[in-house]
Amino acid sequence: MAAREQLKHAPCPVARALDAVGDAWSLLIVRDAYDGKRRFGEFLDSLGIARNILSGRLRKLVEAGILEEAAASDGSAYGEYRLTRKGMDLFPVVVGLRQWGEKHLYGRQERHSLLIDEASGKPIPRMRPAAADGRPLTPANTRVRKLPDGRA
Amino acid sequence: MAAREQLKHAPCPVARALDAVGDAWSLLIVRDAYDGKRRFGEFLDSLGIARNILSGRLRKLVEAGILEEAAASDGSAYGEYRLTRKGMDLFPVVVGLRQWGEKHLYGRQERHSLLIDEASGKPIPRMRPAAADGRPLTPANTRVRKLPDGRA
Repeated sequence: MAAREQLKHAPCPVARALDAVGDAWSLLIVRDAYDGKRRFGEFLDSLGIARNILSGRLRKLVEAGILEEAAASDGSAYGEYRLTRKGMDLFPVVVGLRQWGEKHLYGRQERHSLLIDEASGKPIPRMRPAAADGRPLTPANTRVRKLPDGRA
Repeated sequence: MAAREQLKHAPCPVARALDAVGDAWSLLIVRDAYDGKRRFGEFLDSLGIARNILSGRLRKLVEAGILEEAAASDGSAYGEYRLTRKGMDLFPVVVGLRQWGEKHLYGRQERHSLLIDEASGKPIPRMRPAAADGRPLTPANTRVRKLPDGRA
């Protein structure tokens, strides 16, 4: 079995998640869906990728149960792609990517978009893994408990 | 400019982050580094990918400032790859992928590894974006404030 194919069956949830969404375009489509985009043409305009690549990624996201196809809400002939619960649950991943990008990938003079909490009108706080009592969790104070057969 | 190349310069931090780490192997190398792996051979054994692919991904991660090369801690001739602060800061992304995978990608009978809080010995709580006052944040109660020129 090729290494890439093994990810789909891995006992490590990080590996399985990356098998499903471990490419840039898939997560950018999910990002655009959070931003309210629904139509093929909207994703096409936003991403600037070739139609056949977008078609393939949308089909893969539908097969993975992250998006679902639905009749257009305005009754037009073109269908829409809507996020499922599974797709909505990727929000922490997209927020994590955003916040890491904000911190590490912009020069001092460079500006970037902001994710705003609508209730406060302010950028959302940094999201961090935390214990039940609020202690910050890091690679240093966590460990992976592997399956008994030693697989990751 | 090709669509993929534009991600590197995007005003959206999600896009820039995915330009840097938007492939499965790069984030699995980072996962393995959190798990204490440092040597080329350790990553090779863990991932089961071809040496040239691993070499390329490690070089890209070093160029991106996510890993740094260092002399081996045991004085041997083989160098090590260590996480930088920028690499450590990807932890929320990896935790987010893990928790989404745990929730959505395993059948009832299937077991997976667990990320344990060493202090409590228990799996770490679900990480969620939250407002300063603790309200859960979702795509429905947040919005992206784009740059004035309308770019995402």
